Amino acid sequence: MKIMVDSSRSPHARLRPVCVSDVTLTDSFWAPRIETNRAVTIPSQHAHLETTGRVDNFRRASGRKVGLGFQGDWFFNDSDVYKWLEAASWELACRPDPELDTLCDAVIDEIAAAQQPDGYLNTYFMFEREKERWTNTRDLHEMYCAGHFIQAAVAHFRATDKKSALEIAIKLADHIDRQFPTEKPCACGHEECELALIELYRVTSEQKYLLLAQRMIDARGQKPALCGGGRYWQDHQPFVEQKEVTGHAVRMLYLCSGATDVVLETGNAAYRAALDAIFENFVTRRIYVTGGAGSRYEGEAFGSDWELTSERAYTETCAAIGSVMWCWRMLLLTGEAKFADLIEHTLYNAVLPGLSESGREYFYQNPLADRGTHRRQEWFGCACCPPNVARLLAQLPGYFAATDDSGKIYLTLYAQGEIRVGNTKIKITSEYPWDGKLTLEAVGDAPALMLRIPGWAAHTGPPITGGGGGSSGGATDGWREVPLIDGKATLTLDLAMEPRRIVAEGRALALRGQVALARGPLIYCVEQVDHEKADAWDLTLPDDAPLTLEKKPGWVALRARGLAQKSGVLYTSPDPGGQTLTPTPITAIPYFAWANRTPGPMTVWLQRSPG
Amino acid sequence: MKIMVDSSRSPHARLRPVCVSDVTLTDSFWAPRIETNRAVTIPSQHAHLETTGRVDNFRRASGRKVGLGFQGDWFFNDSDVYKWLEAASWELACRPDPELDTLCDAVIDEIAAAQQPDGYLNTYFMFEREKERWTNTRDLHEMYCAGHFIQAAVAHFRATDKKSALEIAIKLADHIDRQFPTEKPCACGHEECELALIELYRVTSEQKYLLLAQRMIDARGQKPALCGGGRYWQDHQPFVEQKEVTGHAVRMLYLCSGATDVVLETGNAAYRAALDAIFENFVTRRIYVTGGAGSRYEGEAFGSDWELTSERAYTETCAAIGSVMWCWRMLLLTGEAKFADLIEHTLYNAVLPGLSESGREYFYQNPLADRGTHRRQEWFGCACCPPNVARLLAQLPGYFAATDDSGKIYLTLYAQGEIRVGNTKIKITSEYPWDGKLTLEAVGDAPALMLRIPGWAAHTGPPITGGGGGSSGGATDGWREVPLIDGKATLTLDLAMEPRRIVAEGRALALRGQVALARGPLIYCVEQVDHEKADAWDLTLPDDAPLTLEKKPGWVALRARGLAQKSGVLYTSPDPGGQTLTPTPITAIPYFAWANRTPGPMTVWLQRSPG
Repeated sequence: MKIMVDSSRSPHARLRPVCVSDVTLTDSFWAPRIETNRAVTIPSQHAHLETTGRVDNFRRASGRKVGLGFQGDWFFNDSDVYKWLEAASWELACRPDPELDTLCDAVIDEIAAAQQPDGYLNTYFMFEREKERWTNTRDLHEMYCAGHFIQAAVAHFRATDKKSALEIAIKLADHIDRQFPTEKPCACGHEECELALIELYRVTSEQKYLLLAQRMIDARGQKPALCGGGRYWQDHQPFVEQKEVTGHAVRMLYLCSGATDVVLETGNAAYRAALDAIFENFVTRRIYVTGGAGSRYEGEAFGSDWELTSERAYTETCAAIGSVMWCWRMLLLTGEAKFADLIEHTLYNAVLPGLSESGREYFYQNPLADRGTHRRQEWFGCACCPPNVARLLAQLPGYFAATDDSGKIYLTLYAQGEIRVGNTKIKITSEYPWDGKLTLEAVGDAPALMLRIPGWAAHTGPPITGGGGGSSGGATDGWREVPLIDGKATLTLDLAMEPRRIVAEGRALALRGQVALARGPLIYCVEQVDHEKADAWDLTLPDDAPLTLEKKPGWVALRARGLAQKSGVLYTSPDPGGQTLTPTPITAIPYFAWANRTPGPMTVWLQRSPG
Repeated sequence: MKIMVDSSRSPHARLRPVCVSDVTLTDSFWAPRIETNRAVTIPSQHAHLETTGRVDNFRRASGRKVGLGFQGDWFFNDSDVYKWLEAASWELACRPDPELDTLCDAVIDEIAAAQQPDGYLNTYFMFEREKERWTNTRDLHEMYCAGHFIQAAVAHFRATDKKSALEIAIKLADHIDRQFPTEKPCACGHEECELALIELYRVTSEQKYLLLAQRMIDARGQKPALCGGGRYWQDHQPFVEQKEVTGHAVRMLYLCSGATDVVLETGNAAYRAALDAIFENFVTRRIYVTGGAGSRYEGEAFGSDWELTSERAYTETCAAIGSVMWCWRMLLLTGEAKFADLIEHTLYNAVLPGLSESGREYFYQNPLADRGTHRRQEWFGCACCPPNVARLLAQLPGYFAATDDSGKIYLTLYAQGEIRVGNTKIKITSEYPWDGKLTLEAVGDAPALMLRIPGWAAHTGPPITGGGGGSSGGATDGWREVPLIDGKATLTLDLAMEPRRIVAEGRALALRGQVALARGPLIYCVEQVDHEKADAWDLTLPDDAPLTLEKKPGWVALRARGLAQKSGVLYTSPDPGGQTLTPTPITAIPYFAWANRTPGPMTVWLQRSPG
C-alpha cells in the first residue's frame, strides 16, 4: 500500500489515507511542479549528494572507499541521503522509473554495506569516533538520522514492495530498542525518530517500535533531564504538560507529529490534550500569516506569543513541512477540516516559497520582507530543506484525499486531476488555485463526497450546484457532504475567490498598522520589480482602494491604487506635513513566487492607510 | 586634571572638557542618583567582585592565594574589576572618600602583584594557560581587558594624582607595543584598547601609544584578515571604508570612540569621513527611539537598516554607554550640538533604564516592549553592564559643560547645580527634566555662555529672557550664545516641554501604525500596573487625544483618553466589526522608570488610531 502515513488500521483514526498513487494531478499548478521535482529536483539533489561526499561517507564507512575523512560540515549529513531516498521512493510510487529505481537500489546497497553487524548505522561515528556512539543523544543527531532512514525505508518498501531498505531499518530499530530499553530511556535532541518508529510499527506490526517511540516522548522534561532540560529541545517539561510551540521549530513540529501518531495508535488522552493546547498556541499566537513557523534566527526557534516580525522571520522551509506533517496526522485523527485548511495554506505560502521556479534552488529561511539580498541557494552545508521539499512534493498527491470507515471520500485539497478510491473515480476539472470553480464527476460505490469548504470561502452562500445532494448537503466543521445517487454525482463547487485583506491583532506589535493581501489559498506580496516609482517598502494601501485581478504568466496578480510614503527621517512628528504621499499603483504577486525575478525590496505586509 | 576625555591639548578639538569636579549637581534627578551610585552601587559591586572571585583571580595570579582555579564564567572577568576601579576613581575625583580611596589602593595593589615581569596582565592566561597568551586576539579579549585597565588607570591618576595604577598601565601598554609592532599589527576582536591607549598618550605624551592605537584600527578589514574578517568584529572592511554601524554593537561604538580620539589628535580626514557616514547610518536607520543601539540577540548586534523591533530589541546598556562615549568625543571634535542632544537622549532613555531605582539591579538588554518577564538582575555571569553604568554615573558631571579656545562655556547638558570654569561660576536653578525652565546666574571672565537648544525645543520661539545678550543672541547649530556683560549674566531659559508624539517612517516595518510619547528629553512607555481594565499591549491612542500631565512621586506622567483593542484572533478581516474597542484612559510613565513596580506588559510604542 503506497500510503505515506498509514492510519488504515489505527484504532483512533477518524480518517483513512488513500495511496499516493490513487491521485493523479493534471492541473497547471501542481502537476508541472511535481514533474519538475521528478525531472530536475531529485536528480540534481542526487548529484549534490555525490559531489558533496554525502554518499561517499557510506562508502567510507563500509570500507568500499578508503583514504577519505568524513565529508561535509555536519555530523547529520546522512539524513540528507535518507530524505532524498524517501523522495525518490514516493516518486517511484507514482510512476515507474527504472533508472531511478536502480539508483535507489544502488544507494540502499551503499547504506546496507555501511550498517554495522549490531545494526548501528551512522557514517559519522565510525573509526576513531566509534567510541562516541550514543554518548550524546541531545546534540549529535544519531537518533534523528536513524529516524530519517527508517522513514525512507518504510516509504521505499511501500512504494516498491522491496524489502532491501526495510530490513536495514528493522536491524537499526532493533539496535536502538536494545540500546534504550525501558530502564534507560532516550530523549533525543532532534525529534524525528518517534514518528518513523510508529510508521515502522505500522509496517511490521511489531509493537515494540510503538512502545519505543512513546518511551522517547515520555522521556522529555524529566528530572533529572535526559536532554538538557531546555525549551530549545522541548525538554523543559514533560510533553503532556506542554502548552506552547517552543524552541527549535522543526523539532517541535516533528515531536507533535510523532505524538499525534501515538494518539492515532493508542488514543492517549493526555497526549491529545497537550496536542490541542499546543496547536491552539501555534495558530492563535505564533504562526505567520503565510503559515510559516519560527520567528527567531537564534535557535531556529519559535518566539514568544505574537513575536511575528517580517524581515527577520526565520520560517524555515523544513518547519513549514513539519507543520504539514503534523496537521496531516491531526486531520487523520480528528477529521476536522481546519487541519486541511492549514495544510493547504502552508503548502502554498510557506513550503512552496522554499523552492525556485526552476526546481534547483532553495530557501532555508522564508522572510516576509526583504531588501533584495535574500535569494535561493543551490545547496547548503546544512542541507535539510532541499530534500525535505523534494519528499513532500513527491508524496503530494497523497494529501488530496482521504476516506472514512463509512467509505465517504474526503477531498482534502483541490486541484484538477483524478482520484481513485476503491472502485470510485472522481474527475476534477478546475483552474484552482487561480479560480475557485471546480467541476466534479464521481462514479462508483462511495456513499458520498465530503467537500472541504476552506475558511476563506466559508462566508459565501451555498457554493454547490448539481450533484446528488446539491446545495442541500449539510455543512459540518468545514465539510459539505454530497451523496452519490445511483453511484454518481456531477456537481460544480464554486469557492469565492475575491481578493481579501488581512490584518493582525494589535498584540502582534510588528504587524500593527499593516495589511496583507490574499486571494483563495494564496498570500500575496509586493516586489520591487513591479514598482518603478517607489520603493516597495514605502507602498501604502488605502483601506478603500479596490483590489482588481490581473492575469500574468504563472500567476494572477492583484492591483490597487496606492500611495508611496517616504519621509527619509527615521523619527518624526505625526504631523501629516512631515510625510510625502505620492499616488502609485500597487501590484501584488503570490508570495510563493517571490525572488524569481530581479532582486529588490519585497514585503508581504503593506502599510495601511485609513483611506 | 580630573578630565575624563582629555581633549585639552588635542590639536583638532573644537571643544575642551572641564574637570569632572568642576560641576556640582544639586538637582532632584541626577544628584540623588549619583549619590546612590556612591553609596549603594559602587560598594555593592565591589562586594560582587569579591564574592564572585573576580578579585581573587588577581590574588591567584600573584600567588597570594593558592589552590584556586580561575573564578567565574568568562575569560574577560578582569575587565569588571577595572571598570569598577574606573567608577571608584571618578567618584574620588568628585569628593574625598578615604575609605574608597583605601579600597582602590588595595585593589590596585592586587593588580600590581598580578602583573608579570614583562608587563603582561591578565589573570586568565596564567599557569597552564600562559602559552595561550596573544594566540587569539579576535576572541579572547586580552586587549579588551588591557584597555579597560589602562582607562581605569588613567582615571585613577587624574582623579587622585597617584601613579600606582598608571605605572602598571604604562608597563602593560609597553608590553603590548612590543608584542604588536608595526610589522605585526593586531586587530582586536573587542575594541576598547584603542581609546584607552589614546588617553594614555594624553597623560604621558608618549606618541607610541597613539600610533599603536591607530595601527590597531588600521589593522581591521585587511586581507588576509587579522580578525576573522567578519562584520561581527567590524573586520569586513578597512575602518576608513566602513559606512554603517554593524556587528556587535558595543564593539562598534567603542571602535568609533577610539577612531574619534585619533581624529582629535591627528585630524585624519579619512577617519573623519568614515565616522560621519557611520553616524549618519546610526541615527537615520539603526537607532531605537530610546537612543538604544543593537537590534539583535544574535551577536548582541546591530541589525539591518530599519530593523527596530520592540520586544526583541537587544539595546544593551553597554551599547548605550558606548554611544554616549562616542558622541562625547564627536562633540569635542565638532562642537555640534546634535551630539550633545543625543548624549542627553541616550542618558535618560537608554542608559538609565539599565539601573533600578535602588541602584542594585541592572538590565543587560533594554527591550521597548515586554510581557512582564524581563526584570533587572543583581549581577550577571557576563557582568559588563553594571560597572559600566557605575563609571558613567561617577563621571556624569563632566558631561555637563565644555569650553572652547575663546573661553566660552558650553552648557552641554542641563540640571540644577553649579559649574565652575576658570574663575567663572554658573549657578543653575531648575526642575529639569520635569520642567524646561532654567534660571542661570553667571559671574566671571568667560566671554559668553553657549546654551544648547535641544532639538525637541527648537521649534519654540526665542526661549531666553534676561541675560547679557537676551533673546538677541544668535542661534548656531543648536547653540544660543549669551555674552557676559561686565562679567555677569542672569537669564531664564525656557525650553518648551509640551508632550509630543513621535512616529517612525514606514520603512521601520515593526513600528508602522504606532506612536511613541515624549516630553522634553524623556521617552515614555505604558506599564500594565497603571491599567486595570486592559492589557497594556491592547492600548490604542487616538491621534486627536490631548496629552495632559500628572505629577507623581518620582516622575511626571502623561495621561490621555485611549481605546483598548482586543480581538483575540490573530489574523482577521479589517472589517471594523471584527474588533472591539473599549474606551480606556492611558497613563504613560518615563521609560527609564519601567520595571520598578508590579511586573506586567509594557510598551513604548502604542497602537495609533486615526482618531
